Amino acid sequence: MRAAAAATATAAALLAPGLKLCAGRARVSSSSSSSRLPLRRVAAMASAPNSSFRPEEARSPPALELPTPPLSKFKVALCQLSVTADKSRNIAHARAAIEKAASDGAKLVLLPEIWNGPYSNDSFPEYAEDIEAGGDAAPSFSMMSEVARSLQITLVGGSIAERSGNNLYNTCCVFGSDGQLKGKHRKIHLFDIDIPGKITFKESKTLTAGQSPTVVDTDVGRIGIGICYDIRFQELAMLYAARGAHLLCYPGAFNMTTGPLHWELLQRARAADNQLFVATCGPARDTSAGYVAWGHSTLVGPAISSSATSTPWRSLSAGRCPEAGFSVASLDAAVSL
Amino acid sequence: MRAAAAATATAAALLAPGLKLCAGRARVSSSSSSSRLPLRRVAAMASAPNSSFRPEEARSPPALELPTPPLSKFKVALCQLSVTADKSRNIAHARAAIEKAASDGAKLVLLPEIWNGPYSNDSFPEYAEDIEAGGDAAPSFSMMSEVARSLQITLVGGSIAERSGNNLYNTCCVFGSDGQLKGKHRKIHLFDIDIPGKITFKESKTLTAGQSPTVVDTDVGRIGIGICYDIRFQELAMLYAARGAHLLCYPGAFNMTTGPLHWELLQRARAADNQLFVATCGPARDTSAGYVAWGHSTLVGPAISSSATSTPWRSLSAGRCPEAGFSVASLDAAVSL
Repeated sequence: MRAAAAATATAAALLAPGLKLCAGRARVSSSSSSSRLPLRRVAAMASAPNSSFRPEEARSPPALELPTPPLSKFKVALCQLSVTADKSRNIAHARAAIEKAASDGAKLVLLPEIWNGPYSNDSFPEYAEDIEAGGDAAPSFSMMSEVARSLQITLVGGSIAERSGNNLYNTCCVFGSDGQLKGKHRKIHLFDIDIPGKITFKESKTLTAGQSPTVVDTDVGRIGIGICYDIRFQELAMLYAARGAHLLCYPGAFNMTTGPLHWELLQRARAADNQLFVATCGPARDTSAGYVAWGHSTLVGPAISSSATSTPWRSLSAGRCPEAGFSVASLDAAVSL
Repeated sequence: MRAAAAATATAAALLAPGLKLCAGRARVSSSSSSSRLPLRRVAAMASAPNSSFRPEEARSPPALELPTPPLSKFKVALCQLSVTADKSRNIAHARAAIEKAASDGAKLVLLPEIWNGPYSNDSFPEYAEDIEAGGDAAPSFSMMSEVARSLQITLVGGSIAERSGNNLYNTCCVFGSDGQLKGKHRKIHLFDIDIPGKITFKESKTLTAGQSPTVVDTDVGRIGIGICYDIRFQELAMLYAARGAHLLCYPGAFNMTTGPLHWELLQRARAADNQLFVATCGPARDTSAGYVAWGHSTLVGPAISSSATSTPWRSLSAGRCPEAGFSVASLDAAVSL
């Protein structure tokens, strides 16, 4: 039954009780991190509702056994922030939302894409921060680090424009519960779109594309990071799944054209195809903004029902609305599979 | 603008006017078939509605240019057949449906998975045919070949159980408009499922898995073939897209558990992720059967709206219903993108 044991490894990774591997930076650029983790054989779990999807059993030859990093039940908060042109207000507003989420029991908090200023090529340079310099050169970054430490939460910090040398990046910082930067994802797939009369945007006018996938081991499990348009590319999610991610986090700012067309579809597809959780977090809809975001931040599980946004997994209210606010939902592999 | 030209090649393949490359067997087991086709540079098509999704522009380094095999507007029929235990009736019924579809103008006709007898491990051996022997040893096969030739249509013949030596396969035969067998796909991913109290089935009790992807060049374009559970595996669709398929055809028989959960999601995801058309064809729902099929045969395009089954692309009625019947819809790359 070697094949069967291997086959359940992916699902098993989600079901494994909360082993406490230490959190650590796991910006994976090779497969070496996997080999550091113990391999475990896992008994077949025929009684688990989703155990019937064992893709490796249908693949020949069977895949190698996967490591089983820890995942236990915890609360996730998606902070669907309103964003203004006032950077100081945006930082204070984000901080208040994070504090409220933590007080509601969230151990993982997500922020939206580009939450410290307007989403526009004119604004990116103005609101950009030098993350490596930190301190006063990076007030958004510093707030996130400080609040993650003080609240002892894992924080997937949405994204902000990052200045590095002569380049600007659209960058997501992930902080551990000690406030340390555990991973930094620079958006790989820049969003250049031109649908005449509907939506035109060209990130590549100001931004430089990132080059690397980002996998981070945290207190709440192994997380793969993408930003917005990165979710459109199925191979990135496949790569994260192959590296043992439990959860993919996509801060995003889909718009009124791409939102209804693809936002729900893509996150449900990534979750079902790769048998993991997917969390998205966008800014609140502001119809007076130059770029009107779709909202609908959502958490979906791998066996989500056919209507994810209208009946999102575990009554996640942000999934139903475009307005500002945040939601806290339990990510519980044992019940969601 | 080399990158931009390469970037539009996938979309361009769908938009290219109907060059008449000859139909021929293209069971691809290596990448050699692509190299036989002429490479074309394609001008940017900014005015096409979907031209804004140019995934290769967001990938670095850019992909190689793709060949552009022909695709023109044509009608597709999905024959959502009722299936009984009477094989002769099933064959006559399928033939009548194909004839009706052709008389309605369909140039491509799809049949469901396992349409010549019940979907059960007990029935597979009884209804299996020796396709290589043909003639009286394969009455379903022979009917399909004959009717494709006489009606001058391309026929994706759903699937039947195939006996080959000591093995049984779940096999889809694709016939050209000359009645010749252009490709034969043996289901790669066998459907073994066990959700207690809901659905239990184990194809591997009687069937052997196929080993090869199947791409067929036909009068109506380049088609990638999968059968039912094959659609669950995103990498097969990605492989077909990389080989220049315009259209993926999945005869399938999802059930009352997996149907509402994944049938619509998977076909929309394959179409959107790979920017091609996806046609599915299942048997009609028969609540008295041992295995109750979901129905809802559907054709989706790459930019389908967010509710594919309730408002399927180009008013495809089978997409809305589980009952027996068939639908004819136009596959028209120019308007659907």
